[in-house]
Amino acid sequence: MRKERDSMGEIEVPADKYWGAQTERSMLNFKIGVDRFKMHPTIIHSLGLLKKSAALANKDLGEIPPDVADAIAKAADEVITGKLNDNFPLVIFQTGSGTQSNMNANEVIANRAVEILGGQIGDKSVVHPNDHVNCGQSSNDTFPTAMHIAVVLELFNRLFPDVSKLRDTLHKKSIEYKEVVKTGRTHLQDATPITLGQEISGWVAQIDFALDTIKYALRGLYSLAIGGTAVGTGLNAHPQFGDRCAANIADLTQQPFVSSQNKFFSLAAHDALVNTSSALRTLAGALFKIANDVRWLASGPRCGIGELLIPENEPGSSIMPGKVNPTQCEALTMVCAQVFGNDATVAFAGTQGNFELNVYKPVMVHNVLESINLLADACLSFNEHCAVGIEPNLPVINKHLENNLMLVTALNKHIGYDKAALIAKTAHKENKSLKQVALELKLVSEKDFNEWVNPLAMTNLDRSQF
Amino acid sequence: MRKERDSMGEIEVPADKYWGAQTERSMLNFKIGVDRFKMHPTIIHSLGLLKKSAALANKDLGEIPPDVADAIAKAADEVITGKLNDNFPLVIFQTGSGTQSNMNANEVIANRAVEILGGQIGDKSVVHPNDHVNCGQSSNDTFPTAMHIAVVLELFNRLFPDVSKLRDTLHKKSIEYKEVVKTGRTHLQDATPITLGQEISGWVAQIDFALDTIKYALRGLYSLAIGGTAVGTGLNAHPQFGDRCAANIADLTQQPFVSSQNKFFSLAAHDALVNTSSALRTLAGALFKIANDVRWLASGPRCGIGELLIPENEPGSSIMPGKVNPTQCEALTMVCAQVFGNDATVAFAGTQGNFELNVYKPVMVHNVLESINLLADACLSFNEHCAVGIEPNLPVINKHLENNLMLVTALNKHIGYDKAALIAKTAHKENKSLKQVALELKLVSEKDFNEWVNPLAMTNLDRSQF
Amino acid sequence: MRKERDSMGEIEVPADKYWGAQTERSMLNFKIGVDRFKMHPTIIHSLGLLKKSAALANKDLGEIPPDVADAIAKAADEVITGKLNDNFPLVIFQTGSGTQSNMNANEVIANRAVEILGGQIGDKSVVHPNDHVNCGQSSNDTFPTAMHIAVVLELFNRLFPDVSKLRDTLHKKSIEYKEVVKTGRTHLQDATPITLGQEISGWVAQIDFALDTIKYALRGLYSLAIGGTAVGTGLNAHPQFGDRCAANIADLTQQPFVSSQNKFFSLAAHDALVNTSSALRTLAGALFKIANDVRWLASGPRCGIGELLIPENEPGSSIMPGKVNPTQCEALTMVCAQVFGNDATVAFAGTQGNFELNVYKPVMVHNVLESINLLADACLSFNEHCAVGIEPNLPVINKHLENNLMLVTALNKHIGYDKAALIAKTAHKENKSLKQVALELKLVSEKDFNEWVNPLAMTNLDRSQF
Amino acid sequence: MRKERDSMGEIEVPADKYWGAQTERSMLNFKIGVDRFKMHPTIIHSLGLLKKSAALANKDLGEIPPDVADAIAKAADEVITGKLNDNFPLVIFQTGSGTQSNMNANEVIANRAVEILGGQIGDKSVVHPNDHVNCGQSSNDTFPTAMHIAVVLELFNRLFPDVSKLRDTLHKKSIEYKEVVKTGRTHLQDATPITLGQEISGWVAQIDFALDTIKYALRGLYSLAIGGTAVGTGLNAHPQFGDRCAANIADLTQQPFVSSQNKFFSLAAHDALVNTSSALRTLAGALFKIANDVRWLASGPRCGIGELLIPENEPGSSIMPGKVNPTQCEALTMVCAQVFGNDATVAFAGTQGNFELNVYKPVMVHNVLESINLLADACLSFNEHCAVGIEPNLPVINKHLENNLMLVTALNKHIGYDKAALIAKTAHKENKSLKQVALELKLVSEKDFNEWVNPLAMTNLDRSQF
Repeated sequence: MRKERDSMGEIEVPADKYWGAQTERSMLNFKIGVDRFKMHPTIIHSLGLLKKSAALANKDLGEIPPDVADAIAKAADEVITGKLNDNFPLVIFQTGSGTQSNMNANEVIANRAVEILGGQIGDKSVVHPNDHVNCGQSSNDTFPTAMHIAVVLELFNRLFPDVSKLRDTLHKKSIEYKEVVKTGRTHLQDATPITLGQEISGWVAQIDFALDTIKYALRGLYSLAIGGTAVGTGLNAHPQFGDRCAANIADLTQQPFVSSQNKFFSLAAHDALVNTSSALRTLAGALFKIANDVRWLASGPRCGIGELLIPENEPGSSIMPGKVNPTQCEALTMVCAQVFGNDATVAFAGTQGNFELNVYKPVMVHNVLESINLLADACLSFNEHCAVGIEPNLPVINKHLENNLMLVTALNKHIGYDKAALIAKTAHKENKSLKQVALELKLVSEKDFNEWVNPLAMTNLDRSQF
Repeated sequence: MRKERDSMGEIEVPADKYWGAQTERSMLNFKIGVDRFKMHPTIIHSLGLLKKSAALANKDLGEIPPDVADAIAKAADEVITGKLNDNFPLVIFQTGSGTQSNMNANEVIANRAVEILGGQIGDKSVVHPNDHVNCGQSSNDTFPTAMHIAVVLELFNRLFPDVSKLRDTLHKKSIEYKEVVKTGRTHLQDATPITLGQEISGWVAQIDFALDTIKYALRGLYSLAIGGTAVGTGLNAHPQFGDRCAANIADLTQQPFVSSQNKFFSLAAHDALVNTSSALRTLAGALFKIANDVRWLASGPRCGIGELLIPENEPGSSIMPGKVNPTQCEALTMVCAQVFGNDATVAFAGTQGNFELNVYKPVMVHNVLESINLLADACLSFNEHCAVGIEPNLPVINKHLENNLMLVTALNKHIGYDKAALIAKTAHKENKSLKQVALELKLVSEKDFNEWVNPLAMTNLDRSQF
Repeated sequence: MRKERDSMGEIEVPADKYWGAQTERSMLNFKIGVDRFKMHPTIIHSLGLLKKSAALANKDLGEIPPDVADAIAKAADEVITGKLNDNFPLVIFQTGSGTQSNMNANEVIANRAVEILGGQIGDKSVVHPNDHVNCGQSSNDTFPTAMHIAVVLELFNRLFPDVSKLRDTLHKKSIEYKEVVKTGRTHLQDATPITLGQEISGWVAQIDFALDTIKYALRGLYSLAIGGTAVGTGLNAHPQFGDRCAANIADLTQQPFVSSQNKFFSLAAHDALVNTSSALRTLAGALFKIANDVRWLASGPRCGIGELLIPENEPGSSIMPGKVNPTQCEALTMVCAQVFGNDATVAFAGTQGNFELNVYKPVMVHNVLESINLLADACLSFNEHCAVGIEPNLPVINKHLENNLMLVTALNKHIGYDKAALIAKTAHKENKSLKQVALELKLVSEKDFNEWVNPLAMTNLDRSQF
Repeated sequence: MRKERDSMGEIEVPADKYWGAQTERSMLNFKIGVDRFKMHPTIIHSLGLLKKSAALANKDLGEIPPDVADAIAKAADEVITGKLNDNFPLVIFQTGSGTQSNMNANEVIANRAVEILGGQIGDKSVVHPNDHVNCGQSSNDTFPTAMHIAVVLELFNRLFPDVSKLRDTLHKKSIEYKEVVKTGRTHLQDATPITLGQEISGWVAQIDFALDTIKYALRGLYSLAIGGTAVGTGLNAHPQFGDRCAANIADLTQQPFVSSQNKFFSLAAHDALVNTSSALRTLAGALFKIANDVRWLASGPRCGIGELLIPENEPGSSIMPGKVNPTQCEALTMVCAQVFGNDATVAFAGTQGNFELNVYKPVMVHNVLESINLLADACLSFNEHCAVGIEPNLPVINKHLENNLMLVTALNKHIGYDKAALIAKTAHKENKSLKQVALELKLVSEKDFNEWVNPLAMTNLDRSQF
C-alpha cells in the first residue's frame, strides 16, 4: 500500500495501482453493483482520448508546460489502448456527474506521467491531476464528452458492422428466394401470395430504416461539451480550448467531433443520448419483429406453420426428432426486451436534469452502451447461428399455397366474382382445394385453372428491386 | 352571464351554471386537451360523496351550522347522482393538486346550497365555498381522497364484474372442453399433448391471479388522506374530522374506507395508485397472452394453426370465405397496449413528489380510471363477441394430434427408447405419421399402437380440478 | 332508419347518416372507450384527402368512370373540410388494421357521391364503396397512409407553430436577461456564476434540438403505404396507382409525400410512427426540464430559491399573499408524463407486427396524435400564462450571488489559492460574506475586492450569441 | 480437454470442469453479453436446491436408486454452497426456457455424482444427467422453479435486511427530530409548518408501504412450477413428485414453498415475477422521492434551501468549502432509474408468452434479481454514508420558519382575517417579517405575537405516533 492525499486528508491505496485518493474514496463509498456495473472500458478509453487531446490543446495554448503535456499524452495513450484498464475500478453508481471517474482518469494519468517523467508516484508537483491533467476542464464537461466519444466508437466498432452482417445476410436471402411464392398473412390469417424474397425485403428495409435513424442520432453525439467547464460558461478554460480539444479528438478518432454551440445545453441535458437510445429501441423493435416472423414461420414441425427451416444448433428433446427450438430467436428477442428496458432508464434519467447539470450521466451512458453491445452480440449470434441457415421448406410452402383460398381472386376476371366465390365457399365448407372444387363444379378446366391461378403473377414481383 | 368574485376580483360566469370565479379562471387558463381530458365523472361524484361526508362530520362536530350542513349534503347528493355533471367543465391538466376541481366542487355545491336555502346564487354569506363546503379541508387532502374513492368505485362497478364475465366464460369453456386432447406447444414447437380445457384453465388461473393482485391493491386505496389538510398536519381541521368524515364515506359507499394513519405519506406520495396501476398492468398482460393464444390458435383457415373457431362478426374479405379476422383479439390487445402506456405515466408521475405534496394527482388518477374503464369495456366486448363463441375445430385438432411426433414418447416403455426414436426420426424424415412408420417397420401392431399411443392418458387429466 | 347490406346481410342504420352496414356493425361490436376514443378528426380528414387523391388517380388511369371519380372527389371534399365529421362514429379499439374506419370512409363517401349523382342512398350500383371508392386500395395500405398524412398535418398545423411560440418567447427572454448575472447550480449546489440569459439559452437549445429531431422523423412519415394493397404486392392496383395517388396527396397537402419504396415494410411495421413518438418524447423531456427549472427558480417566496417571478393567474391561498403556485408548470409537466406513457404504448405496439401486417395501427396513431395535440396545447398555455411573464427577482438573485462562496475563485490569481481558500472556509464556517471575511482578514482591500470579484466577467458572456 | 457426447455427437470440454456437451454447445452458440450477463449465482444455487429436493423426492417415490439419489444430493450440496460456481459459465441470453442452464446443472451434478460414486466422469451409465438428475422434470418446470426460489432468497437475504436498515435509520431520525419545527412546502412553495420528524415519518411510511407490497408478492413466488414437466400436465413425473419436491425445497429453505395449483399458468406466464418487479418499482419510487427530498433540503449551502446537513464523504471542489455534493442521493436515484428500466423489461417480457410456455424466463429473472441487488446495495450505501449523518441545519430552518408568511394563519382567530391578511401582504410587499410588520402596524404586541404565533402548535404534533 502507498499513501495518497486529497483535501480530506491521507488515505492508503494499493501500491501497484496508479489511482489516487479520490478514486480510493469512491470505492469505499459506493459499493453498489460492484460485480456488474464497472464503468464501461470504452468510457475509460474515451477519457484517455480526451485527456490526451486536452493536454495537447493546452500545450499549444501555453496553458501547461510542453514536457508535462507530452508525458500526459503518453500516459493517456496507455489508457486509450486499454493497458491501464485495471486501474479503473469504479462503478457507475457514484456521483451523477461522473466526477469520480474523471478524477480516476486524472489521478492515474498524472501518476503514470510522473513516472514517465522520472518522478515519484504521488508527487503532484511534477504532474498534478487537477492542475495539469484536468486543466481547463471540469467533470461536468469532460464526462459528457467521454460519453459521446464512447457511444460513437461503440456504434462504429460494434453496432454498425455487426448489425450490417445480419442485414446483408437477409438481403442475400431476399435475392436468393425472390421467386419462392408463398402465402401472405395478415391478421394472422391467410392472404394473397407474396414471395419469400419480398417478405424478407421488408425485414431488410426495416433494419435499413433503423440504421438510418441511428446515424442521424450521430449528429447530436458529435457535439461535445468540452470547453464548458463547471456550468457551461467555460470559466478557467482558455477561450480556444474547447474548439482545439474537440479538433484533437476528431483527429484521433477520425470522427467529425466539434465543440458544442451551446454548452449550457450540453451539460444540463443529454438529449443526444436519449435520441440514440430511442433509435436503438427502433432497431430492437425491428429485430424483434424479424425474429418473431422467423420463429413463427419455422413453427412446427407438424402442427405449426412450418414454412421455414432453421439450423439445429443444440439437441432438442432427445425423444422428439425434428423439434428445433428457435433458440437464437429467443436469445435475440430477450436482448430486445433488455434494450427496451434500458431505453426506459435512459429516457427517465434524461428528464431529471436541474439547472446547470443533469446528474444521471453514468447510468445514461451505461445503458446506451449496454444496448449497443447486446444488439451487436445478438445480431452476430443470430446471423451466424440462424439467419445464414434459413431455408424455405418448399413442400410445406407449396402445400399451403395450393390450399390458400385467397388464390381464387385470380379467377374473378375469367369466370366472374359470383362463380369464383362459389368455388371458394364450397372449398372452405367441404375442406377441398380450389382446383378440386373448380373442376368438380365444372366451372374451369384444369388447363385453364393451372394457367389462370398463377400465384407468382399475383405477387407483382419486381425483379429490379432485388 | 352573472358575476362572481374571488381574491383576484370579479369575473363573469355563465348564468345557468353554479360554478364560481375559480372554476371560470381555470377554464381560461388551462385550455389543454379540452375535448378529451375532462375530469372523469366518477371523480366528480366522489367529490360529492366527500363533501357530503365532510358536511355531516362538521355538523356533528359543531364546526358548521346544521342548516348549512344539511343544504350542503342535499346539494352534494345532486353531484353524486350526476345531476350536476355539466357544472364540472375542468380538465385534468390544471393545478397538479387538483385544487381547481376541488374549488369547482366547493363553488357548485355552495351555490346550489345557497339556492336550496332560498338565497341568491353567489351570496357567500349564506353558504361559503371555502368556509363551509371546504371546512376542515384542503385541496391537498380532498383531491387524493376523491381519487381513492373514484378508483374503488370504478373497480367494483366496472372492472370486477366485467372482467369476471370473461373469466367465467373461459372457466365454462375449460370445463366444456376438458377432454378435448390437442397438441401442446412450447417454443412455438409441437410438444406433448394437453387438453383444451387444461390450456384454458391456465388462462383462467392467470386472470384469477391478476384479480387477486388488484384486490390486494384495494388495501392502499381504502386509506384516505382526509384529515391531513394542507401539509398533513391537519391544521384547521377538528381533531376528529378525518376519522368521522372517512366513516361517513365508508357508510355512503359501503366500502371500508378509513382515515390514513400517516397523512404526510398520503399527500406526498400516491403509491396506492401506482400499485393499482401495476396490478392493472398485470391483468392487461394476462389478457394480452390470452388474446394472442386465441388468435394464433384460430389462425388460418388453411395455412395457420386453425385449432379454434371464433365468431365471425364482420365481413372478412368478400372474396375469401373463411377468413375470419380476429378483430376482438386485436381490439383487446390494443387496449392492453394502452394500459401499458397509462401505467408508465402513472409510475413516472408517482416518482415526482416533492416535500409535502405530489403535484401529479389529476394525471395519475385519470390514467388509472381510463385503464379500468378500457379493460372493463374490452373484456365485455371480447367476452360477448368472441369468447362465448370459441369452439374447437376438432378435425384440425385431431389431424395435428395424429401427426404430432411427440406422441412417440408413449412407446418408450413398450418398445424401448431406441426403437421409438427410430420411428419418430423416420416419420419426420419421410413426412409420415408415427403409426404408419411403426406399422411399416413392423415394430408395433396397429392394435397395440392404438392402445399404447393414448394422447388423453398422456395429459394426466385431473377431472376433479374442473 | 334505413337499411344497408353487406356480405353478412341487412342491417338498419340511422336515416340521417351516410354510413353503411360495416360501420354500423363496428359500432355494435366495439363498445370500447366510446366516450373518449373516437377516431381523431384529422385521421378522418386524411382519409378524405386519400380517397379524393385515389379517385383522381384512378380516373386518370382509366380504372373508374370519370363522373364517378368526380363525385367521389366532391364527396371527399366534404370529409376533408370536416362537414361530415358526425358520420364517423367509430372508435380506435376496432380492427387493428383500421379496416372499419377505412370502410366508414368508403361507405360515407360512396353514399354522398350517390346523392351527388342523383341516385338513391345505398344504391351501390351508382357508386360502390369497395369497387369505386376503395378501388386499387386495401385497408392495409389506406389506413397507414392516412396515419402518416394525419401526423404530418398535425405536426405542421399544431406542434411546430405552438411549440415555436414558446421557443421564441424563451429566446426573447434569453436576450432580455443576457446580462443578469446569477448563481449557477450543479448537483443542486451553488456553483460559479452564469447569466440568466445564458441559462435560458440552454432551454432554447434543448427545444431546438428536439424540434430538429421531430423534423427528421418527417422523412419516414412522407413515405406512404398506398399502392401496396393487401400484403404489399399491390395486387389489384394499377401499377402506377401508388405513385400517382401519392403525388395527388402531395399536391393537396403541399407536403412532399411519396409512395414508399418498400411496401412490405410500410404495412408490417410503423417505425416512422415509433420514431415520431420518440422524438416527441425527447421534446417532452426538454419541456419537463424547463418547467422544473422555472418552478424551482420561482420557489418560495421566502423559503425557497426565489430567483424568478412568474405570473399569478389564480388565487393562491386567500391567507398567504405571495404564494404563487406554479400551476402552468404543473399542467405542462403532467402533459409530459402523459406523453411518456403514450410513447410507451406506441413503442410496445410497434414491436408486435406479424408477417405482412402490424395490427396496432389505430392505437399507435391515436397516441402520436394525442401527444402532438397535448404538447401544442400545453406549450401555448405555458407560453401565454407563464413564460411571457417570467421576470428575474433581482434582489434575491443579487443576494444569492453576493453570498455565493464560489465567487472566491476569482481571487485565486491575485492572492493565491491558499489565502482564497482561507477566506472561503472562514466565510462558510462563520456564515459571513466573502467580502466581509476578506476585509476582516485584511487580505484584500474593498476596492480591489469589488474590482476583482466580478461575477459578470466570470460568466465569459459572449454577447454575439444572443 | 475431455470429450462429452449428446444426441448431436461428441464435443470437447475443459478437463477441469464438470459440465457436459450441452453446456459447451451453449457457450459456443450464445456469445451474447458474456462479460456482464452470466446467470446469477443465486439461480445456480437454487437449481442446486431444486436438484437435491428432486433427487430425494424421487428416491422416496422409488423413481431412482437410493445411492444415485444420495450422490446427486451430495453433488447438489456443492452447487448450493457455491463451491461449483465456476462450472456454470452460461449467460442469460440463451434458450428462453433456461433449458441450457438446467442442463448445465444436470450435467455438472451428474458428473460430480459419478465422481462421488467412484465412476468415470462422463459415464452416464452411473448417473445420467437427464434420466437421474432431471428425473420427473423438464426445463420448463425446473427453471421457473429455480427462478422463484432465487428471488425469494435474494429478497430475504438482501432486500429486506438492507432496506430495513435504511428504514430504521429514518425512523430513528423521525423520533429524534420530531419536535424540530420547519417550513412545510407544497407546490415547492412555502406552506404551513411541519416538524422534521413528521416529514421523515412520511418517508418511513412510504418505505413500509412498499415493503408490504413486496411481501404480498411473495404469495405468488411461493407457488412453484415443479411437477408440471414439459407442458404443465406432469407427463413422466410421478403424480406425487411435484408436492414432495416442493416440500423438500420448503424444508431446505425454511420458506413456505408449495407446488402450484395450476401448472399450465406456472409455465406459460410469470406474473408472480411481474408483480415482484412492480413492487420493486414502487419501492424504487419511494426511495427516489426520499433521496430527492434529502438533496433538495440539503441544497445550498447559501443559495438553496439548506435545511439539512448531510455527510461530506468526498472532496467537493477544492476551491469551494461547504459544497457538499449529494452524491449518495445521486447514486441511489440512478439505481432507481435502473430499476424502472429493469421493470419495463420484465413487464414487456411477461406479456410475450405463447401457448404452454413463456420463453423470456432468463431475462425476466435476471432483471428482478438485479433490481433486488442494486436496491439492497444502494440502501446500504445511502444509509451508511448519508442517512445516518443527516442533521437539521437549525439556523436555516429557524430563519425560514420565522420568515414564513404562512404563520400568519395563527393570528386569524385573534385579530380577524382582514388584519392578519394586511400583515401578511405588507410583509411580503416590504420584504419584512410578520412580527416586524405586526408590531409596526401596532396590530399585535410582541408578547402576544410570540405567544400566538406558535409554529409547533400549528403542527398538531402527536407524540404518541413516534
